[in-house]
Amino acid sequence: MSDSDGEGDTKVAMMEATYRALCQHGYSDTSISKIAAEFEKSKSLLYYHYDDKEELLEDFLHYILDQLETDLESIEAETAHEELLSIVDRLLPEDIDGEQMRFRRAVLELRAQAPYHDAYREQFARSDELILSTLVDVIERGIENGEFRSVNSREKAEFVYSLTYGAMERGIPLDDPGVVNSTREIVVSHLESQLVKFA
Amino acid sequence: MSDSDGEGDTKVAMMEATYRALCQHGYSDTSISKIAAEFEKSKSLLYYHYDDKEELLEDFLHYILDQLETDLESIEAETAHEELLSIVDRLLPEDIDGEQMRFRRAVLELRAQAPYHDAYREQFARSDELILSTLVDVIERGIENGEFRSVNSREKAEFVYSLTYGAMERGIPLDDPGVVNSTREIVVSHLESQLVKFA
Repeated sequence: MSDSDGEGDTKVAMMEATYRALCQHGYSDTSISKIAAEFEKSKSLLYYHYDDKEELLEDFLHYILDQLETDLESIEAETAHEELLSIVDRLLPEDIDGEQMRFRRAVLELRAQAPYHDAYREQFARSDELILSTLVDVIERGIENGEFRSVNSREKAEFVYSLTYGAMERGIPLDDPGVVNSTREIVVSHLESQLVKFA
Repeated sequence: MSDSDGEGDTKVAMMEATYRALCQHGYSDTSISKIAAEFEKSKSLLYYHYDDKEELLEDFLHYILDQLETDLESIEAETAHEELLSIVDRLLPEDIDGEQMRFRRAVLELRAQAPYHDAYREQFARSDELILSTLVDVIERGIENGEFRSVNSREKAEFVYSLTYGAMERGIPLDDPGVVNSTREIVVSHLESQLVKFA
């Protein structure tokens, strides 16, 4: 997008309209006209920027990935252990509310469409790699400063991510936040006993 | 279905046609007419049994869940440890081929639709519970006969299932069997070091 405030505002408003439409209708039932219905500015402005839903959702995935990046970078923690738990918190929030459930459902639908849309697949591959490299960094920092045992950082990162991802993918479609919460406890206790020294 | 062989054959032929259509087109692009195109018997027979794709896929999920049940029951192993590895093999096959990848993609799409279709959600909840209870059984058997350490069997089962599920859900949409293979190794080495005694 351009640097001018007007266009930046429009972009944010379009992304927020997309978010609301996805929460309300899910991915399959979201159409560009349903997104336009959520858009507070002129509908023709939205149609001017996007030809179809796929094009808009590609930008939307890019947008939420940028937000994830900012969110992960903004984590402040005294120790690597604390930082690692904060990342797990982002992946498996302790109190997931109805709107978050609905949004994550729509994202799972989008991910399930990745094999059929190169642009979606690219964004999800980038988001997985961002999360994994953030996990690798904090694990390596913890090893270097003596907080963590000397483990294979990439393997441990893959382990934490697959486990948290699996809990989300199992729990969300079944509308069962219990799976998310119980896995969160399993991840935390695993990290305490297998990674953190003197825990 | 009825007990008569004719109807049983028809049912199997309809399910196989559904399988082929899903592998070829994915879930979103599969229509009842595309399934009918894969059906070797009279197309009207298929339309006689099913009004729409959702109804057919509900039966299909039921059918593959029965197959999973038979498959899990048929595992033969000398020890609980061997049996547990065989179950992990079923969840994360070592050499996943193109057709299996395409089929699992379609199943992930179906699962992503579960929040919007009660009948799908019910089948996936049943399949998760079948896998979890199979895992709990073998872990408890291993604890009882002294092969495994005394762990919380349900927690360990949840752990193994979330981890394997997450690997599948991460790898399949990105068309990356490497994630499946590397997670398989992580699961196996975790079980060796954390569950099996004297491994």
